[in-house]
Amino acid sequence: MTPAPARNVFLSDIPLEDARARFERALDDAGVRNDAVETLALDAALGRVTARAVTARLSSPHYHACAMDGIAVRAARTSEARATAPVELNADEAIVVDTGDPLPEGCDAVIPIEHVESLNGGRVAIRASVAPFEHVRAVGEDVVAGEIVVPAARRLTPADLGACASAGVADVTCVRLPRVAVITTGDELVDVTTRAPEPGAILDSNAVLLRACVRSYGGVVAFDARVADDGDAIAAAVERAIGDADVAIVNAGSSAGRDDHTAAVFRRFGDVVVHGVAIRPGHPLVLAVARRADGAPGVPLLGIPGYPVSAAICSDAFLRPLLARLGGWEDDPPREIEVELTRKLFSPLGEDEFVRAVAARVDGRLVATPLRRGAGVITSLSRANVLLTVPRFSEGVRAGTRMRARALRPLAQIERTLLAIGSHDVALDVVAGRLARLGTELVSAHVGSIAGLGALRDRAAHMAGTHVLDAATGRYNDAAVRRYGPRERVALVRLAEREQGLLVAPRNPRGIASVRDVARDGVRYVNRQADAGTRILFDALLARANIDAEHVEGYDRVEFSHLAVAQLVANGSADAGMAIRAAARAFGLDFVFVAWEPYELAMPATALEEARIAQAIALLREREVRDEIEALGGYDCARAGEVRFVEPAAAEAS
Amino acid sequence: MTPAPARNVFLSDIPLEDARARFERALDDAGVRNDAVETLALDAALGRVTARAVTARLSSPHYHACAMDGIAVRAARTSEARATAPVELNADEAIVVDTGDPLPEGCDAVIPIEHVESLNGGRVAIRASVAPFEHVRAVGEDVVAGEIVVPAARRLTPADLGACASAGVADVTCVRLPRVAVITTGDELVDVTTRAPEPGAILDSNAVLLRACVRSYGGVVAFDARVADDGDAIAAAVERAIGDADVAIVNAGSSAGRDDHTAAVFRRFGDVVVHGVAIRPGHPLVLAVARRADGAPGVPLLGIPGYPVSAAICSDAFLRPLLARLGGWEDDPPREIEVELTRKLFSPLGEDEFVRAVAARVDGRLVATPLRRGAGVITSLSRANVLLTVPRFSEGVRAGTRMRARALRPLAQIERTLLAIGSHDVALDVVAGRLARLGTELVSAHVGSIAGLGALRDRAAHMAGTHVLDAATGRYNDAAVRRYGPRERVALVRLAEREQGLLVAPRNPRGIASVRDVARDGVRYVNRQADAGTRILFDALLARANIDAEHVEGYDRVEFSHLAVAQLVANGSADAGMAIRAAARAFGLDFVFVAWEPYELAMPATALEEARIAQAIALLREREVRDEIEALGGYDCARAGEVRFVEPAAAEAS
Repeated sequence: MTPAPARNVFLSDIPLEDARARFERALDDAGVRNDAVETLALDAALGRVTARAVTARLSSPHYHACAMDGIAVRAARTSEARATAPVELNADEAIVVDTGDPLPEGCDAVIPIEHVESLNGGRVAIRASVAPFEHVRAVGEDVVAGEIVVPAARRLTPADLGACASAGVADVTCVRLPRVAVITTGDELVDVTTRAPEPGAILDSNAVLLRACVRSYGGVVAFDARVADDGDAIAAAVERAIGDADVAIVNAGSSAGRDDHTAAVFRRFGDVVVHGVAIRPGHPLVLAVARRADGAPGVPLLGIPGYPVSAAICSDAFLRPLLARLGGWEDDPPREIEVELTRKLFSPLGEDEFVRAVAARVDGRLVATPLRRGAGVITSLSRANVLLTVPRFSEGVRAGTRMRARALRPLAQIERTLLAIGSHDVALDVVAGRLARLGTELVSAHVGSIAGLGALRDRAAHMAGTHVLDAATGRYNDAAVRRYGPRERVALVRLAEREQGLLVAPRNPRGIASVRDVARDGVRYVNRQADAGTRILFDALLARANIDAEHVEGYDRVEFSHLAVAQLVANGSADAGMAIRAAARAFGLDFVFVAWEPYELAMPATALEEARIAQAIALLREREVRDEIEALGGYDCARAGEVRFVEPAAAEAS
Repeated sequence: MTPAPARNVFLSDIPLEDARARFERALDDAGVRNDAVETLALDAALGRVTARAVTARLSSPHYHACAMDGIAVRAARTSEARATAPVELNADEAIVVDTGDPLPEGCDAVIPIEHVESLNGGRVAIRASVAPFEHVRAVGEDVVAGEIVVPAARRLTPADLGACASAGVADVTCVRLPRVAVITTGDELVDVTTRAPEPGAILDSNAVLLRACVRSYGGVVAFDARVADDGDAIAAAVERAIGDADVAIVNAGSSAGRDDHTAAVFRRFGDVVVHGVAIRPGHPLVLAVARRADGAPGVPLLGIPGYPVSAAICSDAFLRPLLARLGGWEDDPPREIEVELTRKLFSPLGEDEFVRAVAARVDGRLVATPLRRGAGVITSLSRANVLLTVPRFSEGVRAGTRMRARALRPLAQIERTLLAIGSHDVALDVVAGRLARLGTELVSAHVGSIAGLGALRDRAAHMAGTHVLDAATGRYNDAAVRRYGPRERVALVRLAEREQGLLVAPRNPRGIASVRDVARDGVRYVNRQADAGTRILFDALLARANIDAEHVEGYDRVEFSHLAVAQLVANGSADAGMAIRAAARAFGLDFVFVAWEPYELAMPATALEEARIAQAIALLREREVRDEIEALGGYDCARAGEVRFVEPAAAEAS
């Protein structure tokens, strides 16, 4: 068997701005525009863009309206009125009116009720003169019939709609929303509702993502289609899109591999203007414009890469402004903020890189910690609250650098975010869920206990989840906090005691009873990353049993969370791994108990005064929250919310 | 007839923040919350808020997936491979795979195709070793089954929905959108679709405005009802709302007048916590919380004032945050910007005032000019692009003061806005409509020619529409520009020649042939404001005819636009008024020609270099635009777009 015989030519790499400019020019050249309009009732027109100016049908007010509760008079009759010499009016000269009433025949002004003295028989006394049309809303005060109420190309606000209604206009002609065909391609794609997909089958989650992108940018999904990796099948879908939609998206197949048909298919319908953009993720992008007969406007074609983060980033860079252009609204990109990077970031020279990160305000600085960067890891984009941009002229960014980032959440929410960097624990997710309902987002980056304490020292996080055994003393956390944590008084807030153990297949087929058995020949272990508390525990157990790590097969194969370890054991890729009981339970694995360990949240002692922190600690003392954590299995929350302190090493020495 | 016998007690006046705090406390006390949830397919869940955490049903990937196009191998077989000493693999050890394929049985790594040399018979040569799981997306790399994909209380983004889909989750449980009952009250209300409302009938435009507010804040309209000014009828509607909705709005009747039932009705169902807020407009606001049986959460009741601008401002201040609370999302108020006030602004001490204004960047400064302030003038809110806030501790603000304003449009749009202050002309609306389609908003404030030239001198506008006759020379604009305009070279761009004349009722029943006839006894004239070009023309004509203004009945009754003058003549409130022919035509009036006059746009000569200005001038030279203007009637565009210059007085003298 030989590698693919016919591969497409390689992608060219052009900078993002150049790609945008080229695409814009191609859209102009092909006369891409959206002339379609539709007439909408006011109740359906919020946020829509007027296709033409709206002209008042009626004046508003459409009659002279009294603007106060009071009496309507003829102004001339009051001209002699003085404080000391009131004018008296008869009932037929002083007509009681309410705000909004038509000005009675023969009257031309209104006197507010509080300036009127009432006498007998409906007569009144007036002690000040009034000018003609005082306290009267004259016909057309707001808008005059025939006047333009709302101009063309306006995105309609509630006030605009209210103004239309006041002017007797009940419907407005608007630009039709741009319609996007979402075509996903791949022999292996199955619907996301498939209960038990075969290995190799890929849930068509990008279709969900892209439809949501279209809607979030203000467009509508004209149709969606899932087609095989076949040029003709894809071409048929694109042809339908050119007829029925304003834009076509083809997802995946935008690179230059054996099954990458997008660029070739697009060439059947028009010019490919961009193939390959110097951004990461998102590199293999295809942009084209389909020509149509009889000078009809061209139809933009977007070949969006298959990795979900790439798809989201390319959509944001190209589809969002395109829909704004076709919809006639202002493209309103995410807000940019400045953040301080907490960790060194390497980035390839020559590509603009977009890095998902979690940001929070710590000690007055808005700091951001990058998340994992795989373009396939859509959860990283979902969890990130900012997107860092590393320009292509840079090979990386030093820790401490202030850099631009796009806000993926409202700024007020980012400002209130609590950031936990350190060891991963499912119980922390429980607390996060409870806090969210109280308006505080707790985001976390899982880097292991010791890296988390380092982040705390660098003022890069509010708290660090920690469980590090000191082999010398057998105590947890104190030594690590002093060695790696902030050089000040540190508070340790107990989250739970949890059971650590060896995860093995159901009914423990390899008969593993201790770490000693893990070192047996043929037993495949899956480890945690260096510095993870669970790894330190495992190393301590190996040392106590006098076992050399070299004898453990898979010692170097590392995962970054309890659940990832459990998944590999459940999957049969490993025979054993160390993790907490809750992870075993989630996957129906057997659990060989090894130790109870305390999982604590480390933070500077001064942080205890902060309202959000106090809120989180209070939660840990609630029965309902403890029950929810213990229900995960392997947790004991009897001491949850307890606070103890570790003094800095220097202070102790002095 | 006597004034209303029983009036409600007067409103108390509490500051906005106090009213908010009181209302919040009352909501807390009454346990106001939204527990209703609904399960939504992913395609229906964009922007919705999760009611609980979403847990992964499947891992993603759910199998070990090849991450590159290439060959799958067993890593151990490559360990000896060196650049100079390749390892050769047989076809059954080097399986061709594409990205996304399941890792074949017995393999644990992938080598990218570009690092493989293919030999005969499907054999390949490898010149570098590969580590286990290199170029493999291991099971659960993105998310592990059982893990939390999206936390509770998250407003779902496209990335969140993509992450759910990847994890095999096809629907999510979300907080139900808050449901608002919109109750408008008033015997005189008629539907906005009424073709010819009687005098006194009021189009129920606030219902349109408030429904749009509800939707723009993210809520849904539970139902709407239009009821009479009757306590029991209103109470019945409120009772229905308490049963069927999460919030009830009652519009109008929130003051303390004879027909103001809102506060009393609310008291039947619970406590009124606020009646009267120290804001303008928006003062007569009622806030209450209805109690419900069996400890069910209370229902907030909002009595919103009847003037449309007041209604919009109160909704923004109280309904928007309330819906965010009930919907579970972050309240994201309009962005605040800083603008420089161009005109002195008076404001009442003791009330926070919200002033509609048009802002634009002129000469590097973001300047704002207030629009008319009547709370009934909803078009002022529709036309404004910023809302100035004058705090209650201030009696006014000096011109030149920098002050906070809320942006009512995207900032980029405000930055690109062209601001015309000066004389009103309908042809300018035509240009504005054309510019809007090109992405530039042209906003205007109608203050008359001379005030417009003053604004230009103060760098408070980009251009000023001008038509001022110099009676001494009979020439238009030059003298006024030198006297009132900027002290520099000024460009005058011809918009059109237009016909000025006397507007009279159809078939000219009063037989008016010239200004002389306007001064006849019994002829009611309607004038333009002082300094308006049309007023100056009228005064010049009076002077030429030796007529004293005192002999013109209505000389002091002024309107601010051509159309407003036409409306009063059409309406029979006046017998004659001076305006352009287009205004007569819009109302089917007779037009007694008086003069052709040039209407020009004055601007500093340097402004001609600006792209937006050049764009506007180019438009004036387009046949299609000229046709559209001339179709209004009374315009001659033969010279539209011509530019001439006026040198400053000083420069000429030197």
